[in-house]
Amino acid sequence: MTPSPPNGWFDYPIRVQPHHTDYGGVVWHGTYITWLESARVECLRTVGMPFESLVALGYDLPVVDLEIRYRQSLVLGASAIVKTRLAPISGIRLNWLYQIETVDPSPRICVSARVSLVTVDMTSRKVVRRVPPEIQDMVKKVESYFAP
Amino acid sequence: MTPSPPNGWFDYPIRVQPHHTDYGGVVWHGTYITWLESARVECLRTVGMPFESLVALGYDLPVVDLEIRYRQSLVLGASAIVKTRLAPISGIRLNWLYQIETVDPSPRICVSARVSLVTVDMTSRKVVRRVPPEIQDMVKKVESYFAP
Amino acid sequence: MTPSPPNGWFDYPIRVQPHHTDYGGVVWHGTYITWLESARVECLRTVGMPFESLVALGYDLPVVDLEIRYRQSLVLGASAIVKTRLAPISGIRLNWLYQIETVDPSPRICVSARVSLVTVDMTSRKVVRRVPPEIQDMVKKVESYFAP
Amino acid sequence: MTPSPPNGWFDYPIRVQPHHTDYGGVVWHGTYITWLESARVECLRTVGMPFESLVALGYDLPVVDLEIRYRQSLVLGASAIVKTRLAPISGIRLNWLYQIETVDPSPRICVSARVSLVTVDMTSRKVVRRVPPEIQDMVKKVESYFAP
Repeated sequence: MTPSPPNGWFDYPIRVQPHHTDYGGVVWHGTYITWLESARVECLRTVGMPFESLVALGYDLPVVDLEIRYRQSLVLGASAIVKTRLAPISGIRLNWLYQIETVDPSPRICVSARVSLVTVDMTSRKVVRRVPPEIQDMVKKVESYFAP
Repeated sequence: MTPSPPNGWFDYPIRVQPHHTDYGGVVWHGTYITWLESARVECLRTVGMPFESLVALGYDLPVVDLEIRYRQSLVLGASAIVKTRLAPISGIRLNWLYQIETVDPSPRICVSARVSLVTVDMTSRKVVRRVPPEIQDMVKKVESYFAP
Repeated sequence: MTPSPPNGWFDYPIRVQPHHTDYGGVVWHGTYITWLESARVECLRTVGMPFESLVALGYDLPVVDLEIRYRQSLVLGASAIVKTRLAPISGIRLNWLYQIETVDPSPRICVSARVSLVTVDMTSRKVVRRVPPEIQDMVKKVESYFAP
Repeated sequence: MTPSPPNGWFDYPIRVQPHHTDYGGVVWHGTYITWLESARVECLRTVGMPFESLVALGYDLPVVDLEIRYRQSLVLGASAIVKTRLAPISGIRLNWLYQIETVDPSPRICVSARVSLVTVDMTSRKVVRRVPPEIQDMVKKVESYFAP
């Protein structure tokens, strides 16, 4: 089993490239959505749940709800860490929590967010209410990775 | 003065192009963020507040908070309307409300959202608490456009 | 049959939104790729070949080759026209030619480009060398639309 | 001085995330443009020329010409290496060459490309024909990094 992350968060490092910025010289606000996605997909991979395998099984995990608060802008060339963890599960939603932090000597939180996913059938796009064993097993892996 | 929109919403029509979709054959969830932005920028233009003029004056209107709920997926080639309006203003935030609707005979809401903006100085990226007359004037134009 | 475009080009108007720009205050070079795609998809729709129908038939038209020359930058808020036409067909490639022009009193060419597509089977991703009748028919429609 | 890359190419590893794909289940063709940019910016950083420093000096390096050939599609979850090197310099253009390769036991080339840049003044957006000493120095660093 993959050992839990030392500080309770999965860390995904990013760097601000030219295409992430806008006319203001800072990261365009929608760019963060791509980083939230990459961080959670790489977290799933780490615990043995590659997203492409889920899709190959005929399932998808679309975002049904997303909240993001922007506190401070990241500038061209900046390095940052997207920190994510899964909130305790109740029901069919997976709620991922996020903090994006600078990597200065004293880290500051630039962005905080929550992203909620549900399992759907890839073909019908309907929510899967009776989660199949393969997915249940995968979800348990993620859950135990983040268990205290 | 620009007459208020007939049904209380500013309408911005969109069409789903290949680059808006993902492996699931539906619109990737982050794509909607670009449409929310385009709809509000074009609404501002309609009421006589072109965004590029605001930037030329040395101001920016960054997003500080965003909430989006995904109810139904849009597919490749679909047409939809991004409907937006400004919530009544209190304080320094501009809160834009959104509904994205299909254009079927019976429109369905695919996405609902709220996006909050504040005025900042382009150079310092600090929030402008004493809003300058030009901006106050512009905000009044938007406000009166959406006044009942 | 759809009448040919008056000046030999299909026109697709665009406006530069904040998310199209980068730190330089001008359109990020990759943004133009999305506009080239939208212009050709809307051209296909105009001649009775909606892209989603092609996909529903089990075909795709991926880009196999792309050349783009950037002459002048478009800035935030600018309006422009993406002009496109199909080059005479020989073999299995569709070669689309492009000019992006400003809409000033005296239009200037900002970008010129060429994009080459081939028909592939959606499932196998293999090039379809014996083009099926439905596609042949569609291609003829596009060809005759651009015929002098 | 940074030692030259062992095989003549600078390697930038990438992974295909959901937002990189389109309805076809493969990487959307415009996504590669972001990877070409990230690879060359990180190459510049490696040889001591962080892009943000160039911008801080008042210069930009816009793309003036780009050619890309797509040979094989990358799928969701795939790993690949963006390989880049600077062609020998003559005149004011920097010509970057690219190959994107899979990381299978037997690497295959998915994409090949060439991207040409010129130095411009950030404010006037005019080409800088008398390249200033700081930039000349930086370019020499890149050139010697790739020298055989």
